[in-house]
Amino acid sequence: MDETRSSCELSGEGTLTAGSSRVLRFQPGFRWEGVPATEYKQAADHWRGVTRVSLVGGGGEATRFHLRYFEIAPGGFSSYECHRHEHAVVVLRGAGQVRLGATDHAIGFGDTVYVAPNESHQFRNLSESEPLGFLCVVDAERDAPVPLSEKDQSERLCPH
Amino acid sequence: MDETRSSCELSGEGTLTAGSSRVLRFQPGFRWEGVPATEYKQAADHWRGVTRVSLVGGGGEATRFHLRYFEIAPGGFSSYECHRHEHAVVVLRGAGQVRLGATDHAIGFGDTVYVAPNESHQFRNLSESEPLGFLCVVDAERDAPVPLSEKDQSERLCPH
Repeated sequence: MDETRSSCELSGEGTLTAGSSRVLRFQPGFRWEGVPATEYKQAADHWRGVTRVSLVGGGGEATRFHLRYFEIAPGGFSSYECHRHEHAVVVLRGAGQVRLGATDHAIGFGDTVYVAPNESHQFRNLSESEPLGFLCVVDAERDAPVPLSEKDQSERLCPH
Repeated sequence: MDETRSSCELSGEGTLTAGSSRVLRFQPGFRWEGVPATEYKQAADHWRGVTRVSLVGGGGEATRFHLRYFEIAPGGFSSYECHRHEHAVVVLRGAGQVRLGATDHAIGFGDTVYVAPNESHQFRNLSESEPLGFLCVVDAERDAPVPLSEKDQSERLCPH
């Protein structure tokens, strides 16, 4: 598994107890009892205001997928990137926008995004007040995301 | 993939267009635009009142997981069963109960359930009015669920 920062992929998996069944309790503020949230409060070149919570996978489970919750702060955005692995995203909190190839789509609660292999994509929170939160499922084994160059960003295409 | 009816597994996958990125629009009533919901209105021996919506996977995507939304009608329940493959469940609608091995847990919005391999489990909607709806992620390749015998149900154990 690659650890490059990504829309749905930030370094370091969670530290849940593996091996036994469990119920992770939802808490106010969209966090889960006993589950660490990795905060990224500083802006970076490629992403800003992204928090990750690892819910299932990467902690010793045998699943061939990882289930994570991501949250993008007001005005924040994920890396604008490409990769071969697919994303399955379900919005739980707030609203925002996903850029998928040549098209921008508004997204809100329950909207479900499938990002196909090698489709350029970025999640953006256009709100000034409310976080944009979503579940994101990916294969446990996956390739490294590649941030789009400025030229590729203007053409909204993945590098060939 | 086995097609035996299960907590998180009912026969016949959805018919989404594969291969291209997409946004599946959430609609009132917890359905998704253009995505069929498979209704099971008749009671059966092992489950009652279960509806399934296939969101990602099983329609030509390359993901090693399937993402589905399940809904259990008021008074309904999923199969009380065992299998080797794991479940990752996030509650989106209503409230209910999950039996995990020897323990019953109340569940509501956002609560996240990990069902370990060979853990007996059943989801139950104790409400008289509101559906219990949850996302369920499983490996695309998985073993067949086995319903618990009456003896195993009383002991809440998977058969050895």
